[in-house]
Amino acid sequence: MGKYAFGADIGGTTVKLGLFQTDGTLVAKWEIPTRTEENGGWILEDVARSIQERMKTDKIAPRETEGIGIGVPGPVGEDGIVYKCVNLGWDVTDAAARMRELTGMKISVGNDANVAALGEMWQGGGRGYRNVVMLTLGTGVGGGIILDGHILSGTHGAGGEIGHFPVCEEESEACGCGNKGCLEQYASANGIVRVARRWLAGREDASRLRDLETITAKAIFDLAREKDPLAEELADYMGRMVGRACAYISCVCDPQVFVIGGGVSRAGDILTDSIQKHYAKAAFHACRDAAFKLALLGNDAGIYGCARMVLNGAE
Amino acid sequence: MGKYAFGADIGGTTVKLGLFQTDGTLVAKWEIPTRTEENGGWILEDVARSIQERMKTDKIAPRETEGIGIGVPGPVGEDGIVYKCVNLGWDVTDAAARMRELTGMKISVGNDANVAALGEMWQGGGRGYRNVVMLTLGTGVGGGIILDGHILSGTHGAGGEIGHFPVCEEESEACGCGNKGCLEQYASANGIVRVARRWLAGREDASRLRDLETITAKAIFDLAREKDPLAEELADYMGRMVGRACAYISCVCDPQVFVIGGGVSRAGDILTDSIQKHYAKAAFHACRDAAFKLALLGNDAGIYGCARMVLNGAE
Repeated sequence: MGKYAFGADIGGTTVKLGLFQTDGTLVAKWEIPTRTEENGGWILEDVARSIQERMKTDKIAPRETEGIGIGVPGPVGEDGIVYKCVNLGWDVTDAAARMRELTGMKISVGNDANVAALGEMWQGGGRGYRNVVMLTLGTGVGGGIILDGHILSGTHGAGGEIGHFPVCEEESEACGCGNKGCLEQYASANGIVRVARRWLAGREDASRLRDLETITAKAIFDLAREKDPLAEELADYMGRMVGRACAYISCVCDPQVFVIGGGVSRAGDILTDSIQKHYAKAAFHACRDAAFKLALLGNDAGIYGCARMVLNGAE
Repeated sequence: MGKYAFGADIGGTTVKLGLFQTDGTLVAKWEIPTRTEENGGWILEDVARSIQERMKTDKIAPRETEGIGIGVPGPVGEDGIVYKCVNLGWDVTDAAARMRELTGMKISVGNDANVAALGEMWQGGGRGYRNVVMLTLGTGVGGGIILDGHILSGTHGAGGEIGHFPVCEEESEACGCGNKGCLEQYASANGIVRVARRWLAGREDASRLRDLETITAKAIFDLAREKDPLAEELADYMGRMVGRACAYISCVCDPQVFVIGGGVSRAGDILTDSIQKHYAKAAFHACRDAAFKLALLGNDAGIYGCARMVLNGAE
């Protein structure tokens, strides 16, 4: 086994890169811009060049590395084929094959939410566990499922697409996916703001939320912490949505731990206590002792998970 | 690799036993009673003896067999430990270790719903697929999940416990599991009868269901086929419950195929068409082309899955 592994977490704006020792130590991290022009045709070459430069600078020989793990913001099949990445301009792309051509190194490719989950399992909030579900409560709701230390990609790369649980049949507005009533329409930063606006428009009760020019998820949780009743109700509503979603997840894949990350998770105890309360109420008895942890790696979860993914391949 | 494998599907009343060739051909099947007295302490000895007699009669040497797969009606951990089997009288039991002692053969142990799913994948409705979810719509709602040809047991043996999806928060009656509002309270044979009684009591509309002394799931689907409006509505209600549950499952583990079995599945097209209609409406777009198949092996699914499970271990 080599001493090093690289992680490349490709986002719509920047590519985050990390050089890791195989024991999980982050040696260096850096970023390069994501060139989305010409249907993102330069992205993999840019990543390959950047990694090769790093190897030259740090005097790392190819035989000292286990390879490169790559995360992409789109569905990835079990065969490593990227089905489509709107944000990168990619149509169906065999990113692994292309990257192998460019570098001659071992390559693994995964979906960004899934590799983040794997990263949190390896060196973050899920450390010490092998069956991990990560929920990322950000602009949307992302999910990643790790079973026995490996990513559950699913047949169409939709494994862990928890944000699209069909939680409400009566919804009139559409989710970004085209359906109506998806979990992320209620339990993301945008979702909880949308719910707040609805409640404020449809109800009469006083709330300091009415004084704000712009309502944000952060403002809702800040006011909830200050005991504004409507804000408290919204915070608990979001906790209920996420807690019940976790109960559904347990009935399918029965994880040891749920790791909660993403911008909204910075709300802290007020959110996670509510999630756990509603989970305990709804969960099947055998799964009730599942642990809940906060994510620890922030935006670095992806590069950790990418590196771990290529090491998994090398196990 | 040996030429044979045994399957032993232990139920509360009988143990179904099967002798298989490793290519999936069923050579012989038979049953013995399940002796639940003395906390089920004789069950494994009875199974071992019955298999040993069969090997003697059929002149099968131990080296010609790959071992014995055992299905039990209770949760089984990833380590093969049976946590509890109320129907057998068992407390936490290392059934695999005991059976190894008794026979000297290779042993695998799994939950009965999970091994049935594996059996349907191997030689039944899920044949030709590797990512399979089986739903058993019987007295209750059972589930089994097969990923890449292997059972998803989960941390507490609750993998695939779809019947306990918390689908309704307003339910007043309790499920067998202790929670209120589980899927199987609506989408099992008992569940749909319960819903029918409620609707008949709470509504005024005419229905031939009102003329029946005893309402059964079969009667509901028979009358639905004869266009009784309330029976049709009930059949579609059950299809909606199951179809939406499948949409949730897809967002977690994204299978290739759903296999529908159990007594209620004998309702046929009227149920499966409704399940697929509601699935198509609720499913995440990437998963919308998942196939739906009827289970083919009936009560033999368990012995098939048991044999396959021990062959999986030998892969």
